[in-house]
Amino acid sequence: MNPQNGTFKKRGIDYEVPEEMFTLTGDYYHSEEIYQKELEKIFYKRWQLACREEQIVEPGDYLTVPVGEESVIVSRTKSGDIKAHFNVCRHRGTRICVEEKGHFANEIIQCPYHGWQYDLDGNLKGAPFMRDVPGFDKADYGLHPVNVRQWGGFVFINLAENPMPFEDEMGALIGRFEAWNLPELRIAHHIPYRLKCNWKLILQNYQECYHCPGVHPLLADWTPFQNAVHDCMEGAVIGGYMTMTRERGSMTMDGEAAAPPVCDVAGEDLQRVHYYSVYPNLLLSPHPDFVLYHLIRPVGVGEITNDCYFLLHPNVIGDAEKMERFKSAIEFWDMTNLQDWAVCEQMQLGTGSRRFERGRYAPQEDILYALDREVLKALED
Amino acid sequence: MNPQNGTFKKRGIDYEVPEEMFTLTGDYYHSEEIYQKELEKIFYKRWQLACREEQIVEPGDYLTVPVGEESVIVSRTKSGDIKAHFNVCRHRGTRICVEEKGHFANEIIQCPYHGWQYDLDGNLKGAPFMRDVPGFDKADYGLHPVNVRQWGGFVFINLAENPMPFEDEMGALIGRFEAWNLPELRIAHHIPYRLKCNWKLILQNYQECYHCPGVHPLLADWTPFQNAVHDCMEGAVIGGYMTMTRERGSMTMDGEAAAPPVCDVAGEDLQRVHYYSVYPNLLLSPHPDFVLYHLIRPVGVGEITNDCYFLLHPNVIGDAEKMERFKSAIEFWDMTNLQDWAVCEQMQLGTGSRRFERGRYAPQEDILYALDREVLKALED
Amino acid sequence: MNPQNGTFKKRGIDYEVPEEMFTLTGDYYHSEEIYQKELEKIFYKRWQLACREEQIVEPGDYLTVPVGEESVIVSRTKSGDIKAHFNVCRHRGTRICVEEKGHFANEIIQCPYHGWQYDLDGNLKGAPFMRDVPGFDKADYGLHPVNVRQWGGFVFINLAENPMPFEDEMGALIGRFEAWNLPELRIAHHIPYRLKCNWKLILQNYQECYHCPGVHPLLADWTPFQNAVHDCMEGAVIGGYMTMTRERGSMTMDGEAAAPPVCDVAGEDLQRVHYYSVYPNLLLSPHPDFVLYHLIRPVGVGEITNDCYFLLHPNVIGDAEKMERFKSAIEFWDMTNLQDWAVCEQMQLGTGSRRFERGRYAPQEDILYALDREVLKALED
Repeated sequence: MNPQNGTFKKRGIDYEVPEEMFTLTGDYYHSEEIYQKELEKIFYKRWQLACREEQIVEPGDYLTVPVGEESVIVSRTKSGDIKAHFNVCRHRGTRICVEEKGHFANEIIQCPYHGWQYDLDGNLKGAPFMRDVPGFDKADYGLHPVNVRQWGGFVFINLAENPMPFEDEMGALIGRFEAWNLPELRIAHHIPYRLKCNWKLILQNYQECYHCPGVHPLLADWTPFQNAVHDCMEGAVIGGYMTMTRERGSMTMDGEAAAPPVCDVAGEDLQRVHYYSVYPNLLLSPHPDFVLYHLIRPVGVGEITNDCYFLLHPNVIGDAEKMERFKSAIEFWDMTNLQDWAVCEQMQLGTGSRRFERGRYAPQEDILYALDREVLKALED
Repeated sequence: MNPQNGTFKKRGIDYEVPEEMFTLTGDYYHSEEIYQKELEKIFYKRWQLACREEQIVEPGDYLTVPVGEESVIVSRTKSGDIKAHFNVCRHRGTRICVEEKGHFANEIIQCPYHGWQYDLDGNLKGAPFMRDVPGFDKADYGLHPVNVRQWGGFVFINLAENPMPFEDEMGALIGRFEAWNLPELRIAHHIPYRLKCNWKLILQNYQECYHCPGVHPLLADWTPFQNAVHDCMEGAVIGGYMTMTRERGSMTMDGEAAAPPVCDVAGEDLQRVHYYSVYPNLLLSPHPDFVLYHLIRPVGVGEITNDCYFLLHPNVIGDAEKMERFKSAIEFWDMTNLQDWAVCEQMQLGTGSRRFERGRYAPQEDILYALDREVLKALED
Repeated sequence: MNPQNGTFKKRGIDYEVPEEMFTLTGDYYHSEEIYQKELEKIFYKRWQLACREEQIVEPGDYLTVPVGEESVIVSRTKSGDIKAHFNVCRHRGTRICVEEKGHFANEIIQCPYHGWQYDLDGNLKGAPFMRDVPGFDKADYGLHPVNVRQWGGFVFINLAENPMPFEDEMGALIGRFEAWNLPELRIAHHIPYRLKCNWKLILQNYQECYHCPGVHPLLADWTPFQNAVHDCMEGAVIGGYMTMTRERGSMTMDGEAAAPPVCDVAGEDLQRVHYYSVYPNLLLSPHPDFVLYHLIRPVGVGEITNDCYFLLHPNVIGDAEKMERFKSAIEFWDMTNLQDWAVCEQMQLGTGSRRFERGRYAPQEDILYALDREVLKALED
């Protein structure tokens, strides 16, 4: 196979691909057993997106974050740090928080059942009538901690007891997108979706534009698929950019920018849309005039939630007229998302056939072949 | 056991039955494992009804037919033939059609995801950017074919790679019901049902009139259960007829014919209702004045869809006054169907009891005993 | 561990508890395999509440009682006895009754499918066309019996073929609560609930008041948790009483009695609320002025129905003014129930975490530790 054939641009990076690239077998999208293994080996072991820092501003603010079949409390401490813990009381295992978000009064995490109390660092502070119990030491009964790292205004978590260093997995993010000044940006809009497909199908869909001419006529006009360049294959971060046909354009209903350039974005970036999948659950897409990201969460072998967020500078969010114009970007991406979700759900259905063995990737889908290898490697670990 | 005892008429055919006839054990209606085996050994291996020819008239017309957990595209080709294929794109396994029926423009079956194109015979005609891929030959990537046979205006399919000849299984149909001229008839009415019972319980229910006095008072008036005669036990086709108490009667609310005799129906057939189960998914019931059939599809071990169709001559369908009168047949069968569905669902519930071992068939249920043997034989194969 | 520490009253009974009391592991609330074992070893083998006698008054009256995945017909016979049978026809396994309650006309239990008839003692009386079948004896085909015992106006059943004597399991009930004259009381109100939690969590919740201060502020005012005394640990019956802070009080919105004392209730009982869990499915709570009971039925490993009933003397039920006042008790318990259900559902969620191993009981939860041992012992049998 020669990915440099005449029909699409040379990629910016090199990686080995075999001549014949076959897809995964159908059970990788349908087997409950493989799904459970993926939870163990990937979702309970790897760094992944939890939320934006701005979602927990004040000390005591918290979010309840689902991770596979687990639930994690992510909260802001008194010192301004962000901490995360398993949402499980150490007394008898009660789930402490059931709301999606909230605020812990007096910086105390209190179980609603028997009133055991923890501070925001997870230390057990109060356990009624346990004082005189021989052999009981509060220090042994803190909330189980979850590891936290922040980058670009995003909060990443890792449920493993001894996680791989964040930099080893996510190193490629560090120093990237400086011009966007990501920590300064705020959520301007959120569209929640729920899809009937395996989580990997969404990552695959995001990593190739072979489907664009047929599925996304408007997107294919603004960024012809030949304009795709991959420039990153480090660790969990895979991606590149597409060059827009028009200067000062963007991915909107009319192809024109929806907002002023973000912070210091300039030069070539004014005509590029970046697409990075940050394995396993973040799709990050800096545009010249806004940042789009998707947060993917499996809720079963054949079902996910997919939350789509738009980030803008607070100055734009505060300007009603600018926000009116920005609707063109929201409309464009909602339409484009729905086009993608439909084909992903059809792929979920078809791959369940006993007659489906393996599919065959096209040259432009070579990245998917690499992505599949990553999954297989993770499952073997 | 003596099926010729004084309480019901002698059957027209002979087959061996033991003295003590016990039913299947409860797991045949409740075990997920046995159900999966039935799919493999019966629904993915035997000839079965897909649809009527009239449902795909023009070249490019198609139906999407569910078969167990599979999906099959049945379509009319340019030459007027009917072809069927697995509804799975060979590129990456996407389900191509999701609507129940539709029309392929330009006689091209196109996958909505990456646009691979097949002709109506399933040959891969277009696969963007695959031309120069070494070792890729379009001839290897046609849609997986499903076998098709037509009889009496019905379209039968078989998902096996090497199916048993149609005549070996369905031979008893050929030459039968000539007087009705089945291919000329058209669907006059359709009632879709969905039931919470195993597919076999519906076949059992159809094959005995031991339940008629209690469950169907009106039906039992028009055709007393003693009037049942079985005249066919060949291959997958099992059945016989019941003689009506009144001449020129039919199965309607008032017991009178609902329409003129169908085509050349004459003589004794004017006073008979025929009931044939064409294993595993068709119940065929020619009446003097119309043809009733049910299409059974398992959607799980304890759930089926059951589509009830009425066939009439186009001349009757085109006559509003005659169709007004025909409502009496529709009303009768809808009422009678619902009576049957209720007891089948109750049998599904009761057979799940740990205390249920095997039931005991009555002499008039000897055919069910034979039917059970067929299932057991199929599962052993 | 020293349950006699200064913070709560000494219990009235002695039983061995270890120093360190750990809870069951999470799989006891989540494993389908353990749940099936509990059905076999507990719900299909132990005495349990079916209904009140008053729910089947006339000969031929019946209730259809779900027990795990089974269904039992409980009916009143001609002689006034109560009998129970598996709801499964011996002909082919059909569930005979599908309504929650009803009346058998002519004292005949008739299967709706083929009309086999049984008398109220379960004897097969009619089986059409089976008379001449060699080797068929009606005496072999009676409905499978379920054992019945009555106590205090309650009907208990046991699905085992050779059940343990009622007195061995439930002996502690006999002679208890004589003052309430339980058989004379009638259902004054019924609140059906359905909860997403394992059945054992409700029993645990009922047996400790460690959670009361946080979960039930009003209840904790009327009966401070220090006032709890356990006085029974015999067989399946575990419980005790709480002393109310006010004389002639009761568990109502204002803490005052909701009705006159029940029958002969007097002395100390006028200031006590009794709480007995009658393992596995009855929570029995005699108050001075009414009797509250809950009937728990598992419908899956993580789901139950929980029916809450209020018993009163017929004289009170017949007095509209008194019933108006009684609403205060209904309102109190509905509120308190919902407070409990919420924390039980949260405990169900949290114990599913992979990071939850075992919780740690507090001294006041020693009864729960004993209850867990009972379950483990039953599962080992």
